[in-house]
Amino acid sequence: MNIAAAQSGGPTCAINASLAGVFTAASKCPEIDKIYGSINGIEGIINDDLVDMRTIIRNNEDLELLKLTPSTVLGSCRYKLPEDENDEVYESIVRTFRKNSIDMFFYIGGNDSMDTVTKLSKYFKKNNIDIKVIGIPKTIDNDLMGTDHTPGFGSAAKYVAATIQEITRDSSVYSVKSVTIVEIMGRDAGWLTASTCVLKANDEHAPHLIDLPEAPFSVERFLEDVRRMLTEHKAVIVAVSEGLKLSDGEYAAEGFQSGANDSFGHKYLSGIGKCLENIVRDEIGCKVRSIELNVMQRCASHIASKTDIDESLKIGEEAVKTALSGETGKMMAFKRISDRPYFVEIVPVEAADVANKERLFPKEWINNQGNNVTTQALDYFLPLIQGELNIFMKNGMPVHFKIPSWF
Amino acid sequence: MNIAAAQSGGPTCAINASLAGVFTAASKCPEIDKIYGSINGIEGIINDDLVDMRTIIRNNEDLELLKLTPSTVLGSCRYKLPEDENDEVYESIVRTFRKNSIDMFFYIGGNDSMDTVTKLSKYFKKNNIDIKVIGIPKTIDNDLMGTDHTPGFGSAAKYVAATIQEITRDSSVYSVKSVTIVEIMGRDAGWLTASTCVLKANDEHAPHLIDLPEAPFSVERFLEDVRRMLTEHKAVIVAVSEGLKLSDGEYAAEGFQSGANDSFGHKYLSGIGKCLENIVRDEIGCKVRSIELNVMQRCASHIASKTDIDESLKIGEEAVKTALSGETGKMMAFKRISDRPYFVEIVPVEAADVANKERLFPKEWINNQGNNVTTQALDYFLPLIQGELNIFMKNGMPVHFKIPSWF
Repeated sequence: MNIAAAQSGGPTCAINASLAGVFTAASKCPEIDKIYGSINGIEGIINDDLVDMRTIIRNNEDLELLKLTPSTVLGSCRYKLPEDENDEVYESIVRTFRKNSIDMFFYIGGNDSMDTVTKLSKYFKKNNIDIKVIGIPKTIDNDLMGTDHTPGFGSAAKYVAATIQEITRDSSVYSVKSVTIVEIMGRDAGWLTASTCVLKANDEHAPHLIDLPEAPFSVERFLEDVRRMLTEHKAVIVAVSEGLKLSDGEYAAEGFQSGANDSFGHKYLSGIGKCLENIVRDEIGCKVRSIELNVMQRCASHIASKTDIDESLKIGEEAVKTALSGETGKMMAFKRISDRPYFVEIVPVEAADVANKERLFPKEWINNQGNNVTTQALDYFLPLIQGELNIFMKNGMPVHFKIPSWF
Repeated sequence: MNIAAAQSGGPTCAINASLAGVFTAASKCPEIDKIYGSINGIEGIINDDLVDMRTIIRNNEDLELLKLTPSTVLGSCRYKLPEDENDEVYESIVRTFRKNSIDMFFYIGGNDSMDTVTKLSKYFKKNNIDIKVIGIPKTIDNDLMGTDHTPGFGSAAKYVAATIQEITRDSSVYSVKSVTIVEIMGRDAGWLTASTCVLKANDEHAPHLIDLPEAPFSVERFLEDVRRMLTEHKAVIVAVSEGLKLSDGEYAAEGFQSGANDSFGHKYLSGIGKCLENIVRDEIGCKVRSIELNVMQRCASHIASKTDIDESLKIGEEAVKTALSGETGKMMAFKRISDRPYFVEIVPVEAADVANKERLFPKEWINNQGNNVTTQALDYFLPLIQGELNIFMKNGMPVHFKIPSWF
């Protein structure tokens, strides 16, 4: 029996660790022969573009490096399977699986990938094809249903926290008051922005304000908040989700582009951080800067969370065991048993319950003013960023796993 | 005898290490009694706003934390002393020094600070005041005359290299071609942007193009370069200095704001990275992203260069020895003895030869096409980013030195 694994969606620090987990568990199973990697997610299955993983992971050092390398070594895709099961794409997929004697498929991805897991497993069952399909979650957005948290999130949160702490030091040097607005990824779910509250555990006051897509945003209230914080602090740090929304559900940044989202009639063509920077400059007139953490927050593996990477490896291993036990159409999920001591179990859940859905940051963890989060949020986030990895360094820089012939 | 130290200019990862060096060396000298810290650079001297450093650095742990904490624990300023020595500010400075029995002053900063060192030491000599003034260099820009490199630069270069390597992994996942433009600090000197060539030592192709203020920039040539690189690479990474200049010396980003700096008549209101992103999108039409490394490049002490921090400490210590030997009006400097093995000496140079000057990246280290650097540059940069520090972590985040009562 052969198996295949693929990676999908936006990069994180932990997708390769989950792939390493699948590889590790499969390598230990005498009944599994070849372990294929599918190039660019499901597209590699559709196009029969596979690689024998043992030719690229040749030894333990390769495996260790893979665990610590950000992004997706097998490439990625944004492909969604068609609803129509008569579409020839399903035949192409079956053809690739048959041709390569693949009986198990592991798809590491987000809610679009769980849609693929659901559709494929349904299609196989309906057509009496005995191929197991198991999903392995990943996303720095932490917005998947059915799991306590997602692989990749803890590392992103750790980078963001460490970086905001450094930005706080940096912004505090001059005697003039200032505002620094840090824009953090999260189009609809504010988990990563909310996670900046972990800095409280190290006695930081920053971020002084946390604005999430889950709390309706208004420019008037934002300016009021910033003005108040400026009376209390020299250097005000604000963490904002890229996807802040107005009370009517419109994205604030889009509102600024039309100039129609506040009583000031601001019109700015940029992301929310830059928009708010311009507004603070125009309305308050103090020193102000905006910082976009950009793709660094999803790929800064040099400061990955050990908890995250270890769990991401483990959930990949568990996926193989679950498929071997005969399950299909499942996504592996974390079930939190306790915060202190932190303990999670890995369990299979229905991929159909995860597909195309979004788990938002809980409203009850947002404070009454809608500009910060509660201590429950801190208790939830803190375990996920714990621990550091021994990063392999060469010439003063981290060593990444790379496949020479592809590179 | 008492001494005082102050920090000035933009933050780096290494200014506190140099302060720790002054403190360490002074603590060992029986002839030195109090070690004062001046709040917000020379402003603290002018306003008699001093702190007894022994009350804030209470033990070895404090000292170790201070070395690893980015930015300036004593605050900073952008103040330049007046040319007119009759200005009352000079009297204020002498008053503070006299009142607190300060016989030596150490100023950690860039070329503006060396102007202060020069003016003060001249003033003291002229007026027969026996106070020694010694400058300690710092700047991530690496643009000070008289020294092989500057404290703070190596750590910035290490962060930028590690980050561009991670961005390279991140940008390579999809099957479509893409361009990623990384904007790096450096208004007139391209050292930090040029330092991204160190990635070659770890067999990275990125950055594929390196554009510096020292090489006249043209949009036409840039687009040609990008188009050519797109035929050779799937994910093209471009490192650009914020201060790219046109052949007439105008800043390119300012040219874009007037719409008058290329044959296309582009008009964009933003930094150079965003401008070039828009131009690539408009003219080439491929997937393109720009990333501004912002203040992270000067404060990411979680990935500081051990070489940089060790040297920054050492140059602070040497400053004290130099002042004790009777010197004044000097800046401590690194003199490189060899690249391999890397070896530097610390020597005093005339602060007057550093003040208000800028050391640009050498033209002979730029390739003929003006879009990359030579292997001499690699040999120069590589030793500066070597080694990692043991960062103290608490709750999954680096621990910073903070003064509770100020915080």
